[in-house]
Amino acid sequence: MNLVGGFQESVYWQALEGEPVRLPFGAREWEETARSVMPAEAFGYVAGGAGTERAVAANRAVFAQWSVTPRVLRDGSASDIGASVLGTAMSAPVLLAPLGVAEIAHREGERAVARAAADEGVVQILSTVSSVTLEEVAVAAPAGRRWFQLYWPEHEDLARSFVARAEQAGYGALVVTADTYLLGWRPRDLAAGYFPFFAGKGLANYFSDPVFCALLGENPHASPEALRKAVITWGSLFNTATFTPGHITRLKAWTALPVVVKGVCDPREASRLIDAGADAVIVSNHGGRQLDNARPALDCLPPVVRAARGHVPVLFDSGIRTGSDVYTALALGADAVLLGRPWMYALAVAGQSGVRHTLRCLKTDLTNCLQLTGHHTHTTLTPDDLHRAPTPHAPPQNR
Amino acid sequence: MNLVGGFQESVYWQALEGEPVRLPFGAREWEETARSVMPAEAFGYVAGGAGTERAVAANRAVFAQWSVTPRVLRDGSASDIGASVLGTAMSAPVLLAPLGVAEIAHREGERAVARAAADEGVVQILSTVSSVTLEEVAVAAPAGRRWFQLYWPEHEDLARSFVARAEQAGYGALVVTADTYLLGWRPRDLAAGYFPFFAGKGLANYFSDPVFCALLGENPHASPEALRKAVITWGSLFNTATFTPGHITRLKAWTALPVVVKGVCDPREASRLIDAGADAVIVSNHGGRQLDNARPALDCLPPVVRAARGHVPVLFDSGIRTGSDVYTALALGADAVLLGRPWMYALAVAGQSGVRHTLRCLKTDLTNCLQLTGHHTHTTLTPDDLHRAPTPHAPPQNR
Amino acid sequence: MNLVGGFQESVYWQALEGEPVRLPFGAREWEETARSVMPAEAFGYVAGGAGTERAVAANRAVFAQWSVTPRVLRDGSASDIGASVLGTAMSAPVLLAPLGVAEIAHREGERAVARAAADEGVVQILSTVSSVTLEEVAVAAPAGRRWFQLYWPEHEDLARSFVARAEQAGYGALVVTADTYLLGWRPRDLAAGYFPFFAGKGLANYFSDPVFCALLGENPHASPEALRKAVITWGSLFNTATFTPGHITRLKAWTALPVVVKGVCDPREASRLIDAGADAVIVSNHGGRQLDNARPALDCLPPVVRAARGHVPVLFDSGIRTGSDVYTALALGADAVLLGRPWMYALAVAGQSGVRHTLRCLKTDLTNCLQLTGHHTHTTLTPDDLHRAPTPHAPPQNR
Amino acid sequence: MNLVGGFQESVYWQALEGEPVRLPFGAREWEETARSVMPAEAFGYVAGGAGTERAVAANRAVFAQWSVTPRVLRDGSASDIGASVLGTAMSAPVLLAPLGVAEIAHREGERAVARAAADEGVVQILSTVSSVTLEEVAVAAPAGRRWFQLYWPEHEDLARSFVARAEQAGYGALVVTADTYLLGWRPRDLAAGYFPFFAGKGLANYFSDPVFCALLGENPHASPEALRKAVITWGSLFNTATFTPGHITRLKAWTALPVVVKGVCDPREASRLIDAGADAVIVSNHGGRQLDNARPALDCLPPVVRAARGHVPVLFDSGIRTGSDVYTALALGADAVLLGRPWMYALAVAGQSGVRHTLRCLKTDLTNCLQLTGHHTHTTLTPDDLHRAPTPHAPPQNR
Repeated sequence: MNLVGGFQESVYWQALEGEPVRLPFGAREWEETARSVMPAEAFGYVAGGAGTERAVAANRAVFAQWSVTPRVLRDGSASDIGASVLGTAMSAPVLLAPLGVAEIAHREGERAVARAAADEGVVQILSTVSSVTLEEVAVAAPAGRRWFQLYWPEHEDLARSFVARAEQAGYGALVVTADTYLLGWRPRDLAAGYFPFFAGKGLANYFSDPVFCALLGENPHASPEALRKAVITWGSLFNTATFTPGHITRLKAWTALPVVVKGVCDPREASRLIDAGADAVIVSNHGGRQLDNARPALDCLPPVVRAARGHVPVLFDSGIRTGSDVYTALALGADAVLLGRPWMYALAVAGQSGVRHTLRCLKTDLTNCLQLTGHHTHTTLTPDDLHRAPTPHAPPQNR
Repeated sequence: MNLVGGFQESVYWQALEGEPVRLPFGAREWEETARSVMPAEAFGYVAGGAGTERAVAANRAVFAQWSVTPRVLRDGSASDIGASVLGTAMSAPVLLAPLGVAEIAHREGERAVARAAADEGVVQILSTVSSVTLEEVAVAAPAGRRWFQLYWPEHEDLARSFVARAEQAGYGALVVTADTYLLGWRPRDLAAGYFPFFAGKGLANYFSDPVFCALLGENPHASPEALRKAVITWGSLFNTATFTPGHITRLKAWTALPVVVKGVCDPREASRLIDAGADAVIVSNHGGRQLDNARPALDCLPPVVRAARGHVPVLFDSGIRTGSDVYTALALGADAVLLGRPWMYALAVAGQSGVRHTLRCLKTDLTNCLQLTGHHTHTTLTPDDLHRAPTPHAPPQNR
Repeated sequence: MNLVGGFQESVYWQALEGEPVRLPFGAREWEETARSVMPAEAFGYVAGGAGTERAVAANRAVFAQWSVTPRVLRDGSASDIGASVLGTAMSAPVLLAPLGVAEIAHREGERAVARAAADEGVVQILSTVSSVTLEEVAVAAPAGRRWFQLYWPEHEDLARSFVARAEQAGYGALVVTADTYLLGWRPRDLAAGYFPFFAGKGLANYFSDPVFCALLGENPHASPEALRKAVITWGSLFNTATFTPGHITRLKAWTALPVVVKGVCDPREASRLIDAGADAVIVSNHGGRQLDNARPALDCLPPVVRAARGHVPVLFDSGIRTGSDVYTALALGADAVLLGRPWMYALAVAGQSGVRHTLRCLKTDLTNCLQLTGHHTHTTLTPDDLHRAPTPHAPPQNR
Repeated sequence: MNLVGGFQESVYWQALEGEPVRLPFGAREWEETARSVMPAEAFGYVAGGAGTERAVAANRAVFAQWSVTPRVLRDGSASDIGASVLGTAMSAPVLLAPLGVAEIAHREGERAVARAAADEGVVQILSTVSSVTLEEVAVAAPAGRRWFQLYWPEHEDLARSFVARAEQAGYGALVVTADTYLLGWRPRDLAAGYFPFFAGKGLANYFSDPVFCALLGENPHASPEALRKAVITWGSLFNTATFTPGHITRLKAWTALPVVVKGVCDPREASRLIDAGADAVIVSNHGGRQLDNARPALDCLPPVVRAARGHVPVLFDSGIRTGSDVYTALALGADAVLLGRPWMYALAVAGQSGVRHTLRCLKTDLTNCLQLTGHHTHTTLTPDDLHRAPTPHAPPQNR
């Protein structure tokens, strides 16, 4: 091992030379720092979840069920965590989850995220409800790789318009979020009266869309009344009340891009969606934001992996905070994971450089975990690398 | 999905328009607010339980054993949580539990509760030891539906008088509370020396009763001495020392109303009571107020459901705080649930509008839970909708 | 049920009449109050345990494994918790455990305890290391029933002298504490440098004994030097380095009193002691004061009950705080239980009346638990009255 | 039992005579005291671990799974905890783990530790990265017994030089630490920018080595530039990127000293290392400093013991704080244990006398545990002496 030149080593040298890195290195520290710099209601919107937030806590606690046995014999070969999912190459099996309305964290919003993702070679999944348009994000980081997340609108022409725009702007896949067809019951936001979209935030992709504007009949920015009407129109068509495997079949017919379905926890639904043409599924309970008593997402991963039978990639979202978390999800069968709240906190605290730092930390942490258990790539991980505790010994401390 | 017009949406719009809803949206927030506005001993009386209050905590903690798998495929049909129990129609499978002496929370007491229940189309179960008479409650909300809870007095003529009055006033069922034939050992109340009934509170139904007054031989309100004597008389006949299936048989002979027995946790007792004519049973450990080491009420539900063999409805009480809790109890076989302390806290904080708000929240939360797991009505729930964790991942946070 | 005249009712009436009972009603409140009135090192000596005090905590936590199912059918018969163990009648199956050196809690020490026990009809087990002599205790409460606890001295003549004195003074049984043949490793006491016996406290039975004084060769109180020599002499013969079933056989030959062995957790040792003539055994880990990782005492009870095969009574000690705890231990096979730290805290706070109040509370709580689960006497309890949780739902909160 | 003359008794007598021992007696108290006297970043370096420090906590929590049944029958024979491992006699089966860079705790560093170990007859395992040279440590405590821990450098001549020097200086065994071939991901240290080696600390064995200096081509202390170059050189060869059973075979050929491998958790790796000539293995996860989700070290012990099949000793490291912990590890098959952070905290607080005091406490505590469970030597312990709880009743409180 060479203690010179790695990421950690550079951190220590910088400190010794009087130029310390003044950013957090742990998820809890990021969260606490974000809490101190964000408006309370915006922080609450990001951190909060459904009901008593039991699912938010359970998504994290469940990781403590799994541990690994350190290994010491090694052959000196270098490690590689590079991955390719659905034709998109990435420096690590980690994608930035499609959290919306990033402007509540930082004025540069999704553009800063795009630049950080490009810097680190990871994929940004841009939300339909982003603060800036998908085209602006593409311009902000031309070299970056990105996928587009789709909230399927009630009006199908609008859906097709989004798909065409994403394809045109070079997005590499479509991620249909299927678990958000109604507002989760979120006491924090309700008590704060905070739902940024009703104030017109996060709707850039709609307001810039020709189909949407035609439906509206006027420029959303023409007047306060127009804005209000635009928001109401958005609310009335935000997400389709029906969602069937047929939607995937239709979407596949519209586009050559790979189609991913996010929010799939039930293995029978996974099978039906894959049979209908889904190119991948993402196991997720939306970070515990929809159902207070949702089964921990990690517990849903193995059944969905079995249902996919190796035919399509399975990704994992909800609870990832550390390299060891990524390790656990990959060993349980995920092909890659999504990182959610952590990037939003990093964005709030330090913008582009914060997101980039978070990604570097996560990649180093994951590389360490692999090497210390005898792996030189994550692709050799299997459930046999994990030990399941009969009861959690100690819960993870970072949410 | 239409984001316009629902309950949550209206909350967000009101806030945006500068008229925010200034009420809690979570059970813990309600409790903490109630703690700050109620006299300490009255709050302690409501919040407290037997002994070390282990059963109070366990009633809540046990819900964390159960989780649900989110579902995403859907056909767009509307949802309906309306129910009918023992011939009483209700807008949701939720009844207001018969907590007594509501005047310690709010001067309008059970009348405010009656109006809120009527507003929301749910059933109020009025306690024998209410602060105002059953007739006054009926007048306060003529359109409301209500059942009458009976503490069976040692003097049977008095029991028959209560039954006749309830029948006359339009109550739709009789709920015999069977688990309170002695005072629970409640250190909080003992330390505070607080038992409101000895001060004459909560005895309106007795003091207004001709049989009781005849027994007493004078007007309870004639003088302090008369009041004290009336209280002692009440204490001497509050609850029957014997309670047998024969009591149910007799009660059925006195009245045409359905008869429900509350406090049934033992499946053998449930069978005997049903054989004797009980039209329904309520699984309850009185909110943990009687036995410090009572088995969590939710754990008692499935055995009683099995004992009832579908012949009569089984209701559930003790620990319900959120829509996901209602979901869990219904999936485990309950036909409806009772909401207890939450309505008392809401009453204390905001009177009728507080109780109404609490009910709207609970109904919205339950509807969300159903829809997000692929149900359009609670009647299709079964234990297969639940996943049992080997050990609770994270305890629920609201008591 | 008659709400007039019982213990709880009298508490509420007194409060209403402006003369509230100003004593705690729960074990935790007693402990906290005692902490505030006792010297820190004396409180630490009573509250503390071995090592990290894990066994102290586990002795309590293990009770949360067990719960009961409430029952509601009842025949109105009165309840009776009176008991008789080894020929000693008692008002409840509860004895006061032989905690030593009570003068550190209250100047009246074991005399106040004797009077309270007599008031309430329970048995006091007097420690060898009491602050006043066994004869003085007998005089202080002539009507009381008491047993004598024996630390078997290395010098057998001294042992015989103690036995003869206890017999002479009317003690009803001998309790040989077998688990204390060396000082437990107690960091609290070591850090405080607190071991009251080296200051001459708790040695009244030795210093008043003719055999001890003859061994010493002078009056322990003659001078500071004599006292120091007496303490060293005491230390040199405090407890026998050997303890075998033969000791019990010998003791039985010396006395007609029943012989009880305290500290028995291993069922094989229980069998050997019973075969040697022990008239009863007490399952106890000395309140967690000897072994940091001692198995919770309650978990040791069923194996010892099985080993005793009904031939002799089995008593239980270590962790009892509430009536529900007594209930659990009795249902698991104990014939009676010992109450330890709680009486010392009550003594420290309020002397004789404190201990008496604690006993009344415990008896009322136990009676309630029995009645609310369909028992009119504790003698009908069996393990079938308990439900074992796979994992504790909520730990008991009072230590 | 004789209460005069033992370690605990002397503590109490000293206090009585006005000369109390002013040192902690419990691991948590030591840690808290050390926290208050050490620079924050140095304390953090010692106390911290990988990632969220879940493995640090789990290493401790896992001990709560195991408890013991007290025993009371005894034959009066004396106890003996003396041991001999790989030809080295020791007063107890406890060795001081090779924590490096002790100067951050105390200016006397490893010399003070050496003297304390010699005073108490235990083995010091000196780290390669010690603050003073291995020869200076040998001189500081000529009568002491010590082993040398080896971080195997990338440059094999340097490895051989270290081995020759240790042999020459009288070290009794070589302990190859195999689990540290890269820097653990330690957010505490990264946030503090604290890695003492880059400041030239802990490198005395390198800077004094002729092979190292020849590689460097100059005196590391010649100038700040030389020091920096020396540190970079050290970093570039600190630990071999390859580690195979062949390394052990080679090392055995270089030296007559017994060879121990530290950090072995996988039983298959243990077998391969033993087959290659390892004379013993140490189960350890480096105190939770390398992998956030490492399986608790104690859970790894039994599989490795089985793999060793009694052919070589198995030692245990990671989590030992108390005598009962030593007891548990020995009963699960360890031949001896290593004590880690506790000696560093004691060193920080009170230098040589602190470490000595800690060792006396641990030995007394262990002796007590053995005697109170019927053992007069640790060599008779087996897994049958332990009871495994289905779930921890109460976690140990000292880290």
